[in-house]
Amino acid sequence: MRQYVTEILSVGTELLLGHVTNTDARDVSELLSRIGINVKYHTVVGDNPQRLRDCVAIARQRADILITTGGLGPTCDDLTKQILAECFGLRLVENEAEKQGLYEYIRGGRRYTPNNFTQALLPEGCTVFHNNWGTAPGCAFEAAGKIVLMLPGPPNECVPMFRAYGIPYLQSLSDELIVSHSVRIFGMGESAVDDLFAEEMNAMQNPTMAPYAKECDCLLQITAKAHTEAEAEEMMAPVIRHVKEKLGDVVYGMDVESIEEVVLPLLKERGLHFAAAESCTGGDVARRITDIPGASAVFLGGCVTYTNEVKARLLGIDPELIERYGAVSEPVARQMAERVRILTGAEIGLGLTGLAGPDGDGVNEVGTVFVAMAVEGQTWVRELHLGAFRTRSFIRRMAGNHAYDMMRRWLTGLQVNR
Amino acid sequence: MRQYVTEILSVGTELLLGHVTNTDARDVSELLSRIGINVKYHTVVGDNPQRLRDCVAIARQRADILITTGGLGPTCDDLTKQILAECFGLRLVENEAEKQGLYEYIRGGRRYTPNNFTQALLPEGCTVFHNNWGTAPGCAFEAAGKIVLMLPGPPNECVPMFRAYGIPYLQSLSDELIVSHSVRIFGMGESAVDDLFAEEMNAMQNPTMAPYAKECDCLLQITAKAHTEAEAEEMMAPVIRHVKEKLGDVVYGMDVESIEEVVLPLLKERGLHFAAAESCTGGDVARRITDIPGASAVFLGGCVTYTNEVKARLLGIDPELIERYGAVSEPVARQMAERVRILTGAEIGLGLTGLAGPDGDGVNEVGTVFVAMAVEGQTWVRELHLGAFRTRSFIRRMAGNHAYDMMRRWLTGLQVNR
Repeated sequence: MRQYVTEILSVGTELLLGHVTNTDARDVSELLSRIGINVKYHTVVGDNPQRLRDCVAIARQRADILITTGGLGPTCDDLTKQILAECFGLRLVENEAEKQGLYEYIRGGRRYTPNNFTQALLPEGCTVFHNNWGTAPGCAFEAAGKIVLMLPGPPNECVPMFRAYGIPYLQSLSDELIVSHSVRIFGMGESAVDDLFAEEMNAMQNPTMAPYAKECDCLLQITAKAHTEAEAEEMMAPVIRHVKEKLGDVVYGMDVESIEEVVLPLLKERGLHFAAAESCTGGDVARRITDIPGASAVFLGGCVTYTNEVKARLLGIDPELIERYGAVSEPVARQMAERVRILTGAEIGLGLTGLAGPDGDGVNEVGTVFVAMAVEGQTWVRELHLGAFRTRSFIRRMAGNHAYDMMRRWLTGLQVNR
Repeated sequence: MRQYVTEILSVGTELLLGHVTNTDARDVSELLSRIGINVKYHTVVGDNPQRLRDCVAIARQRADILITTGGLGPTCDDLTKQILAECFGLRLVENEAEKQGLYEYIRGGRRYTPNNFTQALLPEGCTVFHNNWGTAPGCAFEAAGKIVLMLPGPPNECVPMFRAYGIPYLQSLSDELIVSHSVRIFGMGESAVDDLFAEEMNAMQNPTMAPYAKECDCLLQITAKAHTEAEAEEMMAPVIRHVKEKLGDVVYGMDVESIEEVVLPLLKERGLHFAAAESCTGGDVARRITDIPGASAVFLGGCVTYTNEVKARLLGIDPELIERYGAVSEPVARQMAERVRILTGAEIGLGLTGLAGPDGDGVNEVGTVFVAMAVEGQTWVRELHLGAFRTRSFIRRMAGNHAYDMMRRWLTGLQVNR
């Protein structure tokens, strides 16, 4: 595929007021990077015809592919569709299927305005992206040597529509396609990964490879260009094998977003369950697994014990232990994990206690966290010093990552603590 | 203040790859809107000198104020500073104070590269924004009739720096200043708020007023223009009083971001504590309060009980009650709140049980949630039907908002359930 310069143009005054975050641009960019299309510009403009027209003119000059998000649908008078059609000299014509769909939607008893029907007007000759996640259809067309895609603004419509229709549409423009995989890494930083593969990466042409930092872990993205998906996969297979071997057990998964996503199926396959006793993470370990649908198959629950007294009352932590070692200590983390395991009847118990800051406790440095995992007959503890300069949210997330990483390692037969 | 056209230009390839979300543009925009400066464009460009130059040229044509984020600091060769200085014909000169600060930083034992010292080079005649939150300084200058501000990329440096230096700098450009307050509302939707004040808002010139929707609540922003802050406050005071009166007890706070931020001081003033027993929210109620530093003064902890058995084991919920009414029911929510209160010794107990989806339980519709609050001698329950079309994250957040809202209402002497 030739290197298309791509621009994402997001339309919506709410973005410029800071009331909404532009996650569409991020998510569409990430999906594009996976098929080897690199976005060179993001632009945000308000619901204003003249300014939108000007932005389209700029995008036409500097980009080959223009992807718009937002400004479709009745509340914004289909601004984006009208202006884009005008800029590219296309008429809007009524699309029978979309009009029919709107009738059915209304018969379903939903509220509508006469404006709703303008949604069935689409640029002549375009490929319609039917909206299975909302009402305003998206579309794609080629005109004046440019490729234009229009997507709705709400993220839960924009992203699935782009994945279902936009990506295949863009892939079909070339007889070559690009496939990519991300190897997710926890326990080695981005710069160390970079150092490890620097020479190889420089020498690679196809497939290619690049490391990226995430908030509390990192990834190595491997991308191949080929005539078929199977061919691309075949080209990447030895690279992925090599990378995994060289990185070893810091690799926690492929094409996932978080370590808990990997731990969930590992537990499920084995019919195992976990419970968590949380102090410094304050429920975040529980929140993370329960963000995933189906968590109830592997997660039983647990306790958030934010004070010493509640540690005793809910978990039965020995107050003398706290007296002697302090609440932020190895023995307390250990007992938290062991007690929550027994109390809930889970096969695995987690215990987290630490200082997320910004205030200290006069004994430990902010960023000190003890993370424990207990199974029948054995308990492991990691002592972390995450750095007093870190934010509260970083420390809480990193502590949780360690808890999930300990489970991953135990579940896959690795040494829990290296 | 005249209406400055403002553009935010964010520099960073990681934004174009979708690895990072552009929260800087959102947060800077929101802070600007509070002083009455409306942003008209956001642009994102990669770490590429020529493309950055082109974007600056476009911004100069269409904007009066250009605010850059990112591309400062040694890892990106201070790209933004170099290019912006070049575009506006300014030399970079060494700033003594910043150089001295770097020496001290290095003496502190931190790692550095020779590149670090380029950070002390700043456009001649600029106002330096010393970075108290990181190393790379920001700055502001006026040249060629434009106002330029440069901010570092990391959100935990960009946003506090802009708040501390950027906002006062922009306010000082005019003998008029703009002050704004947001009245936060839970329990009435944005469109209902809009309807309630539509006529008045149309007639208002200074102060002005506008409603905005947030994910699970909304706000009314009131903005006044005056020669002094005191004058602006005086102009807004009767409007705020009127708005609060007309809205009544759905107003939960002023100039805050979430309802838990309001509940924390309310509890603290009264020396009261709460605990939470969570099922569908899976720890999110606990996570939200513990995201705030100092939560330990008011939050004791609680239980996440994701299965029926754990509801019995940890909380002592009567299995027969679950058998008879189902886990998602009014009596179970009630008992969860009462039990967690007694178990932890808190004055207030919360209980949340519901269906966050996407899978149902065959009995209740997805979005059904029971939220209970227990104090000594009394328990209240809200039955919610949040809508089966809602996302899991919306349902979980909304359920939590109701729990915090019940506490707020009780703590301020309002009827808990209307």
